[in-house]
Amino acid sequence: MADSVSIPAALAAFSEQWQPHRLTGVNDHDVKIARVTGEFVWHAHPDSDELFMVVSGELTIQLRDGDVVVGPNEIYVVPAGVEHCPKAEVETVIVMVEKIGTVNTGDAGGERTAELREL
Amino acid sequence: MADSVSIPAALAAFSEQWQPHRLTGVNDHDVKIARVTGEFVWHAHPDSDELFMVVSGELTIQLRDGDVVVGPNEIYVVPAGVEHCPKAEVETVIVMVEKIGTVNTGDAGGERTAELREL
Repeated sequence: MADSVSIPAALAAFSEQWQPHRLTGVNDHDVKIARVTGEFVWHAHPDSDELFMVVSGELTIQLRDGDVVVGPNEIYVVPAGVEHCPKAEVETVIVMVEKIGTVNTGDAGGERTAELREL
Repeated sequence: MADSVSIPAALAAFSEQWQPHRLTGVNDHDVKIARVTGEFVWHAHPDSDELFMVVSGELTIQLRDGDVVVGPNEIYVVPAGVEHCPKAEVETVIVMVEKIGTVNTGDAGGERTAELREL
């Protein structure tokens, strides 16, 4: 039987910004964790919703029709196909749930694209 | 555009034990929250893994080959088909992710079966 996964232990294992690490999986979805600071890039995920849960800090999810501010212990789900651009003024820890194979930069690609890493 | 979902606000809306409430959804999965105290029933979910994240308290997931203790900010995923019986000595808040339609008592049924409620 597997061990439980600790969010604090996962965070102790890396410091890079915007680099998703895999915490675990549930069915055909990955559960990922990342530290984020600054602004990401506008993109959409055509094939998967993207759930964001903020662990610490504050994430602003810019959408074409306005911003959603997500604080600690809050959750926001960006529907598949919806353009969004996350940003954080202070270092923010986010947990994400999305289909296996979903790429961080979605349909935008570019230099911010990062492979999912194992912890 | 939808609002973010707050775990503390969700908890303020109910006090029942072992009653799952729907926080949100991601693709074909529900994200649920529950307060739990005491012991549940042995059961399995043949068609879905079940992710448990502990928000507060401590959840012991009894498995046929041993117990897993899950504390705050820890996650454990019970694979589909694996028998388990959760218990908590103190009131524990859990967030669950599992396929839409997954019933709390799985294949066991019985009086502890509870319909998923909206907040």
